[in-house]
Amino acid sequence: MSEKRLNILITNDDGITARGLRILIETAKQYGDVLVVAPDSHQSAKSHSITQAAPIRFDKVIETEHYTEYSCSGTPVDCVKLAIHEISERKIDLILSGINHGSNTSVSVLYSGTMAAAIEGGLHNIKSIGFSVDNHSSEADFSDTVPWMEKIIEELIEKEFPVGVCLNVNFPDVSKVKIKGIKTLRGASGVWGEQFIKANDPHKRNFVWITGALTNNDEGNPDTDLYQIEKGFATVVPIKVDFNYYDFIKELSTWKFNDFKI
Amino acid sequence: MSEKRLNILITNDDGITARGLRILIETAKQYGDVLVVAPDSHQSAKSHSITQAAPIRFDKVIETEHYTEYSCSGTPVDCVKLAIHEISERKIDLILSGINHGSNTSVSVLYSGTMAAAIEGGLHNIKSIGFSVDNHSSEADFSDTVPWMEKIIEELIEKEFPVGVCLNVNFPDVSKVKIKGIKTLRGASGVWGEQFIKANDPHKRNFVWITGALTNNDEGNPDTDLYQIEKGFATVVPIKVDFNYYDFIKELSTWKFNDFKI
Repeated sequence: MSEKRLNILITNDDGITARGLRILIETAKQYGDVLVVAPDSHQSAKSHSITQAAPIRFDKVIETEHYTEYSCSGTPVDCVKLAIHEISERKIDLILSGINHGSNTSVSVLYSGTMAAAIEGGLHNIKSIGFSVDNHSSEADFSDTVPWMEKIIEELIEKEFPVGVCLNVNFPDVSKVKIKGIKTLRGASGVWGEQFIKANDPHKRNFVWITGALTNNDEGNPDTDLYQIEKGFATVVPIKVDFNYYDFIKELSTWKFNDFKI
Repeated sequence: MSEKRLNILITNDDGITARGLRILIETAKQYGDVLVVAPDSHQSAKSHSITQAAPIRFDKVIETEHYTEYSCSGTPVDCVKLAIHEISERKIDLILSGINHGSNTSVSVLYSGTMAAAIEGGLHNIKSIGFSVDNHSSEADFSDTVPWMEKIIEELIEKEFPVGVCLNVNFPDVSKVKIKGIKTLRGASGVWGEQFIKANDPHKRNFVWITGALTNNDEGNPDTDLYQIEKGFATVVPIKVDFNYYDFIKELSTWKFNDFKI
């Protein structure tokens, strides 16, 4: 009978102590057995990186009948791979990543460790969702997102879902606005332009610190996540990794290098 | 007059001392001014990660009339962002990343720091190429790739190129086989299945170390990079980042959560 309970993996990139992770855990417990494998430290902006050139450590922190929690020295994607291939004795049915402190709209998906974990789940044909809130504060209260997350999670559990795909769910800043509804749409096209703040450390050695702003190349387009988050809606974008730019393969095949021989 | 020389940025993920980087630098010098901003340590599998929660250091190591070299504490993508926004006083015309020790075919593009650097260049509308050889050894001799790289670089410099796109170039193991030619095609669909090697450190504390094997979901398809690398060809794949899975947006819009209100 316990085999019929869903096996749910939870991870994030803000680390195992993050408030957003705790809300997601409490939300998920009603749907099955929960396995947490979360980074032991902040892993924001770690993208799809894996720990390849160093050992990974993980420790069981909590174990009860329907809940197990591991702290892991690796990245969010390490956590997912470890859970799938090493820690979990059962097939994982659902991966929930987040709730991220800060939005992961537009091209931010490429940099986000939270979304990388969900993408890795999708690559393993596991139903996966990354949740984010447009508020970076580690003390922000995300509890207003719960009923909205529940609706999305419940429907994903119940329905057929395409292979290799995951969901990117972003909420507006729920500490300031009431969520107006949920919109399914595409992620806006954008690019991060960076600035580097220059300073000296206490030993007078100089350093730079990265900051920046997102340029929205889809400004004013209501079918994009950036537009609707701004209007107070939660956004859902189906995400799939396919880096091939098919539209250009034929033309590139006519370039001279294709005929080069030695 | 010196303004007419191309401004070429070179980086990699194997670090500033890598042999592959040195061959790429020597190859690039004939085409313009070369600026190297490369990681001071091994940054393989760092994907698109950026150093967000810590300072970044960079030091000028070499400066001559047409060649400048910086060592950087950050990731490959940090190196590209630093070069574009902070270090280079001129617009960068071309980014060359690699030559990576180890292939970056199929889904490996997602994990590779070398390809992330080229992708970041594409996002900034700079012509960018990632080069990789199917040999992981740090002592491998990649010099047979030079005439092939030259053909691709020369044509890319000369021609119009689509916005937001970069090239992923993989060579077979040139220490063992003669390159038969170049094929432009798509990256194979695949997924890395991991194994975790378990061991104890000298202090008897246990750890795991990630390893794994790529499952080729395009087995036997001659229009894929994995197939042609195996046959001894170099492969060129046009790469563009777009995580939206457009084919599913319409259906997902009919799910019930889209109508939920509080």
